[in-house]
Amino acid sequence: MKNAKIRLYVDADLADGQAVAVSRDQSHYLFGVMRLKEGAFVALFNGRDGEWLAKVTAANKRNGMLVCLEQSKPVQMPPDLWLLFAPIKKARTDFIVEKAAEMGAARICPVSTEFTQSDRVRQDRLQAHALEAAEQCGGTYVPEVAELQKLDAVLANWPADRKLLFCDETRVGEAVTDLTVLGAGPWAILIGPEGGFSAREVERLRGMDGVHSVSLGPRVLRADTAAVAALALWQKALGDWG
Amino acid sequence: MKNAKIRLYVDADLADGQAVAVSRDQSHYLFGVMRLKEGAFVALFNGRDGEWLAKVTAANKRNGMLVCLEQSKPVQMPPDLWLLFAPIKKARTDFIVEKAAEMGAARICPVSTEFTQSDRVRQDRLQAHALEAAEQCGGTYVPEVAELQKLDAVLANWPADRKLLFCDETRVGEAVTDLTVLGAGPWAILIGPEGGFSAREVERLRGMDGVHSVSLGPRVLRADTAAVAALALWQKALGDWG
Repeated sequence: MKNAKIRLYVDADLADGQAVAVSRDQSHYLFGVMRLKEGAFVALFNGRDGEWLAKVTAANKRNGMLVCLEQSKPVQMPPDLWLLFAPIKKARTDFIVEKAAEMGAARICPVSTEFTQSDRVRQDRLQAHALEAAEQCGGTYVPEVAELQKLDAVLANWPADRKLLFCDETRVGEAVTDLTVLGAGPWAILIGPEGGFSAREVERLRGMDGVHSVSLGPRVLRADTAAVAALALWQKALGDWG
Repeated sequence: MKNAKIRLYVDADLADGQAVAVSRDQSHYLFGVMRLKEGAFVALFNGRDGEWLAKVTAANKRNGMLVCLEQSKPVQMPPDLWLLFAPIKKARTDFIVEKAAEMGAARICPVSTEFTQSDRVRQDRLQAHALEAAEQCGGTYVPEVAELQKLDAVLANWPADRKLLFCDETRVGEAVTDLTVLGAGPWAILIGPEGGFSAREVERLRGMDGVHSVSLGPRVLRADTAAVAALALWQKALGDWG
C-alpha cells in the first residue's frame, strides 16, 4: 500500500478521482520545504470525508494540485464534548488548544472569568493550532475554536441538555468522582484560570442544574495539566476511549 | 490562620521552632524579587517533614533566616509510580517533567530508545523543573529525576515486582484497558519518543513478564500528551486519586 508521511487539512471536498488544489502556504510547505515531486503521496482530510490518499499531479512552489486515489480512513467524529478554559499565558494557552484537539474535544471555548489575566486571545491563531494538532495526531476532524466569551454570558445561555464537569480547585484532596455514573450525552469540561474561580463563580456553578463539581486529586494542577487530565478521565469513562 | 503565598523547597529538617537558613538564590527571590520583610510568612517543605508555616526572622538579599511555627500539612508521599519517557524537544521534555511532578509520579526516568533523537538531557535542569512544579502544586514531595539511561539497560535490570504500563502506539484505536483490573503495587509508565518504539523494542516489551501494553485511544498522542493522559488514568484507577 502507498504510504503518505504528510497529512494536510484542506477545505475542498474529497472523493474518488477528485482534484484538489492546495493553497500557496501549503504548496510552499509541500514543494519548497519538504521537496515533494509529482507522483508523491499525501494524506488529505477535511473534517467531513475521512482521510484520502492523494497523489501530487502538479508541484509548483506557489500552487499545486493533488488527485484523490482512495479513502484511507473513514471520518471519525469526536464525542460531543466541549472544553471551556480561561486563557492563561500564551504558550500554555496554545498548549491547551493543541492538547484538546489531540484528546478529541469537539469544540474549544476560551472563556474569561473574574480572575482571568488575559482578556484577548487570537482566535485565528488558536484555530491554526487546533488544525495543526489534528494533522499531527491522525484525526479526521478539526475542533472549532470559539471566540473568547465571558463565562457569565456562556452560563446564562447554557444548553439545558449539556452536562458540565466543573474542575473545582477548592475540592483538592477529595476522591476523584467516577465519571461513568454521571452518564453519557452532550458534555463540557470547565477549567479555571490561575488562582481559580471567584467565590461568586463557584457558587453560581454549584447551583446550576447539570453541573457536576469534581476534584482532580490531591495536588493543585496547573490549568494546562488539568485540561489534559480531565479530558483523559472523561474520554475513558464516557467518550471514545472506552 | 496565617497565610503563606510563597512555598519553598529546602534541604533542612523542619520541626517546631527549627531555624532554617535559605540559600542565596532563595534569598534573592524572597527578599529581592518578592520584597518580603521580617515577620512575613513562607511555607516550607523538604520532602520528608510535610509543609511548615515559617516566619522570616532575617531578610537580607544574600542570606536570610526563617523559623518554623507550625506544620500546615503532613507529608504526602506519592504512590510508588515511575514515569519512563524518551526525551524529545527541550520545551516538551521540560513539560513532561513538570507534569509528572504535578500528577504525582514518585520518580522520573528519561530513557533513550532506538528512535530517540536527543541523546543528552541536563539532569540538574530537569530536577529543578520537578522541584519548581512541586512548589507550585502544593505537593510535599519532589520526585527524583534520574540520569538518562538506555531503555535496553533499564529493561535488563527491571525489578521483578514492578509492573510496567507500556503505552503502545501500534494499538491506537483499540479500547483503552481498565487499569483497575491490572492490580495495585509498584508500577511504571513508559512513553515512547516521536516515531514510537522500534519493532525490536515492541517485541521485547511485549514478551516481558509484568508488562501491560495499552492503547491511549483512537488518535496518536504526542509524547507529552500521552504522559499526562496515562498518569491521569493510572492515578484514578490505582493511585491516590481514587
